[in-house]
Amino acid sequence: MDFHLSTEEKRVGSGIIGLDELLQGGYPKGSVILVAGTPGTGKTIVCFQYLNEGLKNGEKCLFLTSDQRIRNLVNQAKKFGFDFETAMNNGLMTFKFLDLEKRTVHKEMEQEIQLGKYSRVVLDSLTPLSEVPIWVVNRGTEIIPPEDSLSNPPFPVESIQATRMHVRRLLTILEEDDCTALVTSEVSEGTRDLSRDSISEFLVDGILVLDLDASMDRRKLTIRKMRETKHTLKPRDIEINSKGGIRIL
Amino acid sequence: MDFHLSTEEKRVGSGIIGLDELLQGGYPKGSVILVAGTPGTGKTIVCFQYLNEGLKNGEKCLFLTSDQRIRNLVNQAKKFGFDFETAMNNGLMTFKFLDLEKRTVHKEMEQEIQLGKYSRVVLDSLTPLSEVPIWVVNRGTEIIPPEDSLSNPPFPVESIQATRMHVRRLLTILEEDDCTALVTSEVSEGTRDLSRDSISEFLVDGILVLDLDASMDRRKLTIRKMRETKHTLKPRDIEINSKGGIRIL
Amino acid sequence: MDFHLSTEEKRVGSGIIGLDELLQGGYPKGSVILVAGTPGTGKTIVCFQYLNEGLKNGEKCLFLTSDQRIRNLVNQAKKFGFDFETAMNNGLMTFKFLDLEKRTVHKEMEQEIQLGKYSRVVLDSLTPLSEVPIWVVNRGTEIIPPEDSLSNPPFPVESIQATRMHVRRLLTILEEDDCTALVTSEVSEGTRDLSRDSISEFLVDGILVLDLDASMDRRKLTIRKMRETKHTLKPRDIEINSKGGIRIL
Amino acid sequence: MDFHLSTEEKRVGSGIIGLDELLQGGYPKGSVILVAGTPGTGKTIVCFQYLNEGLKNGEKCLFLTSDQRIRNLVNQAKKFGFDFETAMNNGLMTFKFLDLEKRTVHKEMEQEIQLGKYSRVVLDSLTPLSEVPIWVVNRGTEIIPPEDSLSNPPFPVESIQATRMHVRRLLTILEEDDCTALVTSEVSEGTRDLSRDSISEFLVDGILVLDLDASMDRRKLTIRKMRETKHTLKPRDIEINSKGGIRIL
Amino acid sequence: MDFHLSTEEKRVGSGIIGLDELLQGGYPKGSVILVAGTPGTGKTIVCFQYLNEGLKNGEKCLFLTSDQRIRNLVNQAKKFGFDFETAMNNGLMTFKFLDLEKRTVHKEMEQEIQLGKYSRVVLDSLTPLSEVPIWVVNRGTEIIPPEDSLSNPPFPVESIQATRMHVRRLLTILEEDDCTALVTSEVSEGTRDLSRDSISEFLVDGILVLDLDASMDRRKLTIRKMRETKHTLKPRDIEINSKGGIRIL
Amino acid sequence: MDFHLSTEEKRVGSGIIGLDELLQGGYPKGSVILVAGTPGTGKTIVCFQYLNEGLKNGEKCLFLTSDQRIRNLVNQAKKFGFDFETAMNNGLMTFKFLDLEKRTVHKEMEQEIQLGKYSRVVLDSLTPLSEVPIWVVNRGTEIIPPEDSLSNPPFPVESIQATRMHVRRLLTILEEDDCTALVTSEVSEGTRDLSRDSISEFLVDGILVLDLDASMDRRKLTIRKMRETKHTLKPRDIEINSKGGIRIL
Repeated sequence: MDFHLSTEEKRVGSGIIGLDELLQGGYPKGSVILVAGTPGTGKTIVCFQYLNEGLKNGEKCLFLTSDQRIRNLVNQAKKFGFDFETAMNNGLMTFKFLDLEKRTVHKEMEQEIQLGKYSRVVLDSLTPLSEVPIWVVNRGTEIIPPEDSLSNPPFPVESIQATRMHVRRLLTILEEDDCTALVTSEVSEGTRDLSRDSISEFLVDGILVLDLDASMDRRKLTIRKMRETKHTLKPRDIEINSKGGIRIL
Repeated sequence: MDFHLSTEEKRVGSGIIGLDELLQGGYPKGSVILVAGTPGTGKTIVCFQYLNEGLKNGEKCLFLTSDQRIRNLVNQAKKFGFDFETAMNNGLMTFKFLDLEKRTVHKEMEQEIQLGKYSRVVLDSLTPLSEVPIWVVNRGTEIIPPEDSLSNPPFPVESIQATRMHVRRLLTILEEDDCTALVTSEVSEGTRDLSRDSISEFLVDGILVLDLDASMDRRKLTIRKMRETKHTLKPRDIEINSKGGIRIL
Repeated sequence: MDFHLSTEEKRVGSGIIGLDELLQGGYPKGSVILVAGTPGTGKTIVCFQYLNEGLKNGEKCLFLTSDQRIRNLVNQAKKFGFDFETAMNNGLMTFKFLDLEKRTVHKEMEQEIQLGKYSRVVLDSLTPLSEVPIWVVNRGTEIIPPEDSLSNPPFPVESIQATRMHVRRLLTILEEDDCTALVTSEVSEGTRDLSRDSISEFLVDGILVLDLDASMDRRKLTIRKMRETKHTLKPRDIEINSKGGIRIL
Repeated sequence: MDFHLSTEEKRVGSGIIGLDELLQGGYPKGSVILVAGTPGTGKTIVCFQYLNEGLKNGEKCLFLTSDQRIRNLVNQAKKFGFDFETAMNNGLMTFKFLDLEKRTVHKEMEQEIQLGKYSRVVLDSLTPLSEVPIWVVNRGTEIIPPEDSLSNPPFPVESIQATRMHVRRLLTILEEDDCTALVTSEVSEGTRDLSRDSISEFLVDGILVLDLDASMDRRKLTIRKMRETKHTLKPRDIEINSKGGIRIL
Repeated sequence: MDFHLSTEEKRVGSGIIGLDELLQGGYPKGSVILVAGTPGTGKTIVCFQYLNEGLKNGEKCLFLTSDQRIRNLVNQAKKFGFDFETAMNNGLMTFKFLDLEKRTVHKEMEQEIQLGKYSRVVLDSLTPLSEVPIWVVNRGTEIIPPEDSLSNPPFPVESIQATRMHVRRLLTILEEDDCTALVTSEVSEGTRDLSRDSISEFLVDGILVLDLDASMDRRKLTIRKMRETKHTLKPRDIEINSKGGIRIL
Repeated sequence: MDFHLSTEEKRVGSGIIGLDELLQGGYPKGSVILVAGTPGTGKTIVCFQYLNEGLKNGEKCLFLTSDQRIRNLVNQAKKFGFDFETAMNNGLMTFKFLDLEKRTVHKEMEQEIQLGKYSRVVLDSLTPLSEVPIWVVNRGTEIIPPEDSLSNPPFPVESIQATRMHVRRLLTILEEDDCTALVTSEVSEGTRDLSRDSISEFLVDGILVLDLDASMDRRKLTIRKMRETKHTLKPRDIEINSKGGIRIL
């Protein structure tokens, strides 16, 4: 077995005022962080701030999305004061649309990450990608992504076994040493789940939970898990500002 | 990648007294808004008021419905004081019955929207349309709408994977730049769901939730999510008046 | 598109003392009303009173039932003081047994309604009829009622898609202009459902919920939804009297 | 349509001290009553008392059971002071073991009831019988009991559709004019169900619920529904005595 | 029909201090008792004490287990002060490992019980045995244990129908006149179930529930049902002592 | 039957300050302990401390993991002050990556344990391994691990029957006399489960539950079950320190 220990550990700034202090300096470098929340809790804004922070340092950034309307995303970011358009023109920032209906979606994502040498990657969101139909072949030991050309494919599989292998592969793509990744996770209203696949939360290095309390008109962020980090478990009140996005109160 | 930023952002009036103020002027132009609620909470009335507001400005309006009794709908609107009959005669307003049992239902809906140049579109409701049987073919990478002519179709699919692709396509049809769309979503009594497919709430730009508290004889509207809008999360009391429909109290 | 607006709107008396006042005069004419409740809450009694009220006005009445023991039904009604026997002899009242095991059950029901020119129709209950096995054919765009003679039928379908089409067709049969229909819906103990198919409540024009509070020995009726009617949402206490049936307290 | 009204309505004594008063004299003659309860709540004892009451009047009684150990049943009854052995010797009482694994179980049950001219029938319990594997044939319009001799039977069916037809047929067997039947229903701990099939409670004429409150060491009986009977909904405290069985307190 | 009544009823000591008093002398002779509980509640200890009590009277005892490590079991018992090793050497006590992966597991169990002439039998636990794969053949009327040699077996069955037949057969094996049996049942944390099959609790003659209240550091035993026995329903506090095992407080 | 009783019982130190006192000296030697918890509760840290304690005594240690990034694991341990790198170089410590997609994963795990003569084994975690696809063959009596070379394998099985056999085999691999094993179990947020398979908790000798109370910012450890050990059931507050890991407060 061969492996080397990194002699010093680095932190990556979150771009969220007040969060790095709670994380002993930021997200652990090289980690994959899950950002979980119900609709409208601000998952995408956390991603915007993360990438914007990287751009300030001249880091290369990638935004993977299954939403075709990238223009809308850039507009939304602009409203918060994040100028992703300039970064795109400078070649620092890439938005990549993941077409869930194309067989090559996994391979394209993998190549973009490996060739692009990105410091910061966002996958917004993991959920639709993890739900792309897959096939289990070779007696269950392999899951074939849809680009496979078998003529008689077995039926699509939704078992927890197949989902685990599938999610694991997706997250493994993101596990690059010099790259720290944020992946968002869609949580259904009225559950206490951390993801819809109920597996990714066990595979990632950290979990942020975004929440809202409608009757109190309050929004919250909880650090649910963070590798190599001593952190509070307490939900923290946050506000979403038109300029700058989320801020810990 | 090519895209242009819209230089100024516009708002579209909701037609509901008191709501536009809560939305920084109205629904974001070009967005798709989910109106979610259990039976009898007033989802269709929100749609009536939205289209009536457009008619006042001379905007072209489309009402897509899977309910065959359009006469009833027009009558109901009339009772609230919305004269859709005149608008229909003037060519400003179109009611289109979506026959869920016809294979061409998706295509017809798509063509109507693309050719009609509508400013305001209502789909009341998304739920039955999203539940039309579909087929996954080509190894899961494509979902065939029922008009396809394969001789040996695979079995109908109800997986979350297929539903997501299906709902995504339905909502994509509504995503026209110059058109703002309201889609209603049927929520089952006793759940905290935002839709029956549990996916559309993650794909839309905004969510209004209609609710009722029977023991208190009170009705409520909550802005659960609204893209590019700073809004309260607090449920607001509403009343439904015989004339004019819903009003924020 | 051709349709005409009815110039004046009519109400149909419920036969329940105290209810018409809560409904601005009665059920909206031409509507389909769901009467939902757990076992023993009085759904059938609401139907008895509705038909008895029609008989008083000389209206033609139809009682559709999947319970073979029609004699029992007539006896039960008699105990409450409703003389359906005389009405049957006079030809004003028809009890029709829907044999769920006959392939022609849907067609028979349809023909009875269309040929009988009834003012008031009761379907007690919708639930077993909606659960008759059905087949989806022609790529999902059609649901074949069991009288179809295909030699190689596909397997029976229980998907929400098929159920929706099926329930929609059943309710469409009842949607006659000059006829107002009550359909009862079986609700399982301990749920907050409005029907077992969880679809019919979105397709009907009105919903009455019958409920009981065993520990308080109290029975309640709630108007959960009523098209074109301003109504309270508050549960109202009711009593079931040996003579006359249900009365709002 | 031909049917006759019974000119006077009769009541059948329950054999439970205090219950007949709550039922306006007893169970309605000719009805089918569901006795629902979790394990150990006294369902079988209610049946013992019901049959014992009939024996006192010289009525012919039948006890249908899927428990092979009839000797145990007779012993249990004896402990409560019910001498079923003598009644069996006199030919007034019959215990019939329903062998759930025999194909002829339904037919045997039907013949016993039709030929035996019983006044009182107990089926203890309905649940296992309703769960015997069945087959849906002839496009779903028929459910074949297992004695059918098709060579290529379709797969067993567990759909609510098939269950409903199956339970309906079982209960129809018990619906004899001059016979009043009690059927017990197994309710799982921690649910508020009235039966495991969740259908029989809608098909019977009356429902008794047996319950227990362990922390208070109290047992209760509730009349949940009773055709043609004005009754309280309040749970009544009961006690089970070594002699005589259940008594309303 | 032939059967004989046992002229006097006997009780079998439980070996648990304080329990026999609550059971009018002990478990009813010839009965099958379910001992239900979540992990770590002491189900096996109840069995140890039951068999140890029998050994004191020189009764023949059988411990059926699906745990291969019988040595561990004997060690555990020894720690509580139960010397099963000596009893095994004397031939009074038999530990039989039920190999769930052998086709003959049911038959072996049956033969051991029939030939061994045991007074006391423990099956610890019923749950894995009831979950051994089974096949339904002959149109559902028979469940074939795995030793059957059909060449084209149908698929394994998990329906409640098959489970009921299966559990019934397992319990029937234990229903020997001169033998009283304890069977343990695995209950999942956070449910109020009495067994995982949700059927065995209706087939047994008695039910003991073992429970724990972690926050209060308290353990409880409840007599949930006991044939021919007047008993309290109240949960009783218990303690598990290193010597002697469970004791009612 | 042949087996020998171990004359004296030994305890194995947990490496967690304050825990051994609660366990009468430590985990029972030769036992398999389940460490259950939701994401981020410290399951892996309990394992680190367990192995580190062994290393202090010169015991041979094995860490089985389905996470490819062993470097990360060693880094994480180092941060807590556990120098596994040196131990690996000394041959006292082995990290083995279990590749869930290889057919030989079970066999490799088995051989490593049998040949390595380890005193302490950690499997972190059991959950993905228990969810590897398996096949039931030979009429359900055997579960074939994926390395089997059948040409026409039956479909993968997810029944509780197959899972039980599968989990049982996995745990049997760990049941070596001179080896004490910790296996971690992934528990989903918002449930009270002890494992995702809901079976392993009944097969292990002891269960530790790790929990957190976010609103109170508190972490807890509960001894839910421990063979041959008198222990409290009360949840104990713990803290996770940057140096040394978990400590009972």
